[in-house]
Amino acid sequence: MNYKVPLKDIRFVTNEVLDMPGHYSQFTKGKAVDPDTLEAIYEEAAKFCENELEPLNQIGDEEGCKFDNGEVTTPKGFKEAYASFVENGWPSLCGPEEFGGQNMPESVGLVMMEMMIASNHSWSMYPGLSSGAIKTVHTHAPQALKERFMPPMVAGNWTGTMCLTEPHCGSDLGLLKTFAVPDAEASEDGAYKLSGSKIFISSGEHDMADNIVHIVLARLPDAPVGIKGISLFLVPKFLVNEDGSLGERNTVACGSIEEKMGIHGNSTCVINFDEAKGYLISEPHKGMRAMFTFINESRLGVAMHGQAHSEVSFQKALAYAKDRLQFRAHPRVDESKAADPIISHPDVRRMLLTQKSIAEGGRMLNMFCGQQVDITLSPDFSDEQREDAESMLAVLTPIAKGFLSETSMETTNYGIQVLGGHGFIKEWGLEQEVRDARISQLYEGTTGIQGLDLLGRKILKSRGKVMKPLMAKVQAFIKENKRNKFAKELKGYISTWESLTRSVGFSAMRNTDEVNAAAVDYLMFCGYVTVAYFWAEAAVAAEKALGNGASEPEFYKTKVATADFYYQRIMPRVLAHEAAIKNGVDTMMAIDAENFAFL
Amino acid sequence: MNYKVPLKDIRFVTNEVLDMPGHYSQFTKGKAVDPDTLEAIYEEAAKFCENELEPLNQIGDEEGCKFDNGEVTTPKGFKEAYASFVENGWPSLCGPEEFGGQNMPESVGLVMMEMMIASNHSWSMYPGLSSGAIKTVHTHAPQALKERFMPPMVAGNWTGTMCLTEPHCGSDLGLLKTFAVPDAEASEDGAYKLSGSKIFISSGEHDMADNIVHIVLARLPDAPVGIKGISLFLVPKFLVNEDGSLGERNTVACGSIEEKMGIHGNSTCVINFDEAKGYLISEPHKGMRAMFTFINESRLGVAMHGQAHSEVSFQKALAYAKDRLQFRAHPRVDESKAADPIISHPDVRRMLLTQKSIAEGGRMLNMFCGQQVDITLSPDFSDEQREDAESMLAVLTPIAKGFLSETSMETTNYGIQVLGGHGFIKEWGLEQEVRDARISQLYEGTTGIQGLDLLGRKILKSRGKVMKPLMAKVQAFIKENKRNKFAKELKGYISTWESLTRSVGFSAMRNTDEVNAAAVDYLMFCGYVTVAYFWAEAAVAAEKALGNGASEPEFYKTKVATADFYYQRIMPRVLAHEAAIKNGVDTMMAIDAENFAFL
Repeated sequence: MNYKVPLKDIRFVTNEVLDMPGHYSQFTKGKAVDPDTLEAIYEEAAKFCENELEPLNQIGDEEGCKFDNGEVTTPKGFKEAYASFVENGWPSLCGPEEFGGQNMPESVGLVMMEMMIASNHSWSMYPGLSSGAIKTVHTHAPQALKERFMPPMVAGNWTGTMCLTEPHCGSDLGLLKTFAVPDAEASEDGAYKLSGSKIFISSGEHDMADNIVHIVLARLPDAPVGIKGISLFLVPKFLVNEDGSLGERNTVACGSIEEKMGIHGNSTCVINFDEAKGYLISEPHKGMRAMFTFINESRLGVAMHGQAHSEVSFQKALAYAKDRLQFRAHPRVDESKAADPIISHPDVRRMLLTQKSIAEGGRMLNMFCGQQVDITLSPDFSDEQREDAESMLAVLTPIAKGFLSETSMETTNYGIQVLGGHGFIKEWGLEQEVRDARISQLYEGTTGIQGLDLLGRKILKSRGKVMKPLMAKVQAFIKENKRNKFAKELKGYISTWESLTRSVGFSAMRNTDEVNAAAVDYLMFCGYVTVAYFWAEAAVAAEKALGNGASEPEFYKTKVATADFYYQRIMPRVLAHEAAIKNGVDTMMAIDAENFAFL
Repeated sequence: MNYKVPLKDIRFVTNEVLDMPGHYSQFTKGKAVDPDTLEAIYEEAAKFCENELEPLNQIGDEEGCKFDNGEVTTPKGFKEAYASFVENGWPSLCGPEEFGGQNMPESVGLVMMEMMIASNHSWSMYPGLSSGAIKTVHTHAPQALKERFMPPMVAGNWTGTMCLTEPHCGSDLGLLKTFAVPDAEASEDGAYKLSGSKIFISSGEHDMADNIVHIVLARLPDAPVGIKGISLFLVPKFLVNEDGSLGERNTVACGSIEEKMGIHGNSTCVINFDEAKGYLISEPHKGMRAMFTFINESRLGVAMHGQAHSEVSFQKALAYAKDRLQFRAHPRVDESKAADPIISHPDVRRMLLTQKSIAEGGRMLNMFCGQQVDITLSPDFSDEQREDAESMLAVLTPIAKGFLSETSMETTNYGIQVLGGHGFIKEWGLEQEVRDARISQLYEGTTGIQGLDLLGRKILKSRGKVMKPLMAKVQAFIKENKRNKFAKELKGYISTWESLTRSVGFSAMRNTDEVNAAAVDYLMFCGYVTVAYFWAEAAVAAEKALGNGASEPEFYKTKVATADFYYQRIMPRVLAHEAAIKNGVDTMMAIDAENFAFL
């Protein structure tokens, strides 16, 4: 069974839950996206993903990337699929017009990103990284650099990477050692020579594009220690002449690639800089701030990784569950057969509906984030509207990234579990979903880092102010739908969320470790409640469609029933997270590091 | 960092929590196990596992088994390690004396089994399957068959398998099609010819032993349909002459081996029977009952798989967490360094202590099961004692198997998570723990099947009677320790357990689907509470040692602190399981199978 793009579900969220047509009507870029254009993009994107990417997914896992003397060969077919992607103009979909882009709102590109990840996670990360690199260069680099680098990046002829991690530092980038010294011989402004070694560089070297543009964190000679002494550079694999033609090979090279649990088709590279020529693309020492343009975009991408794997695992498990006959159901589905399809059995349904409610709930959350990204980027919205959208993204980005990556471990493991032993063997592809999804809890900041970002750096640091726009939106929904059963239940969860936040805030005043101790449970709590909000929105939208005599009532009834399942069988989990947080940090700190084990 | 056998922890459970010396003093077989003998076995077993099995673990994963024309080659070193295992007499440790065994109680062998699994899961399954096969033949086969087959099986020269699953049936064995017809030409009694195809046969073919003895479920010509028409057979790879020497090759052959997510070093075989000669080893049509000797032993083995992976992941993550410097702790651990070990950070401790409390709690549960197995097998205990032990095992086997395999997904994933990106790459071995552990939720009955066995077939069917011996034991502990804080909290959990069971029982009277819907949440609820009971026992034992001025107080203080962590940060999860169960089955059944997705 192959993954199919769930276009009906995507249309439902687009038109009925988030009113994207209404959203697009409010700003210049959006006005180009009339419903017919959007539908055409969705359909063509789905065809590309189903026909060209999905068939390479298992091959990519089996073959993996090959490394030989600095060169990386991607799995069979990857290069050709990328050529077709470029030829059909997909890379430039949301690129800025001045550099050859088609200027579509980000939200449109994010929907296509979900389809690409679901079809082939490994492949999707070659263009995926480029997208963040383009936005970073576009937002922060000097005009001359943009003019030289942006056009081929937007067209997809060159790809991008983000170079942060070093062997001795990942989460704690303040420790990084790669350094840059001014290039005295250079004719251009802002040229430096970079030296150091970066690891875990996704898509860091490959055979799909003419050039690779590395976006690199490094220290200047006079840099303050720690996170406030980091600057951001652009380092191309091939130097670029002033007329834009490729020059000589830069002294940046791939030293090796990693053998990994999953995403075998994506190269994870050691990238060595040996006095490599690079260009400063932000103010000196303010590189982290600029890098967050890239990091935030990537975190939304990772949220989609988690969500997409939930969707694919659900689809594959569902197909099997409808086909596989084991045990008899009450009542029988088909008396003439020795057994009934396993989808008749409640425990199998529990697994499938968990997958479904997380996958579809996650899609609403991610697409809502896409809507907010559009708002933050368009001058047509008021300052207040843009600030509110920034606040929503500040809260929802770590929630979406952390929660959807964590839950993807449960959903993809259910994909295996529904198939029983058949799920554990490679043939059916379900175990690959687990291995590929597993990276999403790690990159762009582990779940622990997301939790700290959410609770510490965002919510507590702003004394809750950052939550206001989201809470206002949710409260308005609750008020508008006060007789709706989901809205009623949601009201209770929102009030618990607020009191839990206050309670952690108070504990943190006594002991700052309480924040670190609560971080992941708090993030999961927020994730469940946020997705509950979107399921309530979906149920209201579906009930409205049913009230209006929708032509496919079963589709809408299923949405309401899925919301019901989510509230009844998934939401009880918040009780555990809340209680664990309230029990505090003390039992975690009682054992000295040396006494954790007596071996 | 290599896995080390946690001998101090094993001794603590042996001597202080479960009073195994007192247990061994009560029966003939046990009396041979004086403390010095036991210590010598533990130490020699640990050496064998650490020195001979552990070094092959990663090699086994990388190389995997090779299949060529019916033959399976195990990874480099596996065969030699097995030869050394046999040479040193380990296979016969718990084998019956009359067939050359050393007659040790089962509980001793189970402790060694944990060490072997932790060192090398794939390798451990070659002798692991034999152990169940030996017990099945010993318990059910006619004497003549035993005399011919038992001695080389006990000595380890031959290994065993269990052949249950067929392509169209796994959980629902009533559907199986392999059939046996009387072998008219045979000179021996009970000889049949078996035809059919079995899949997922662990250790079904390999190069480590002279012969392989398959224990096979098949139908006789006059068999009733379904589960009541299944008989049990012994089918050797090589026929065995009456004098015990090997005869000609039987017509049973390995057709292929599976490519799997993990346990690459263990062969998972398609086994084809083509009028293969076999021997009936139970009464006709009563094969399932006899097979449960094998299945129950194997389920305990799988419980140990889960627990052992938790232990190994904990050890490896701990070593990394003490070494890796990222971020500064409050207060600083070492001012002279730029950052502190990540074990200083509460969220990392949360992960490590979850691993530790599950691994060590699971060990107590498993070793307690071993103690009960000893009791069921010894005629020195009264009928009542043996029946009580049977009841305890009836309840605790599905709990241990289901709960410890499910939690191993969380603990082994934390092993990756503590290492961050380094956990996802193969080098450190943490991702292998996840892939190897993943099978444990599947084989010997999925978690869903364990949940149904526990709640439906055991507890509700007996109207709670099967729970009585366990509950009596726990209540006696609570009464004896009524001022202990853990015992006090435990009392509340036990009372919730009882009321939850009644509540599911009532719901099931209205709708039997409620049992299936509750099964996995109920099993997890029971798992958390059962392990909480053992942590309370451990805390009481540790406090006693501290009161007696134990020479290594930090060891005991850590036990109490771990119990504290488990009660404060893990036990809140039961709230979620209880609430989910109480919300019932209705939301699971509301959607027609055809409406789960609209693709």
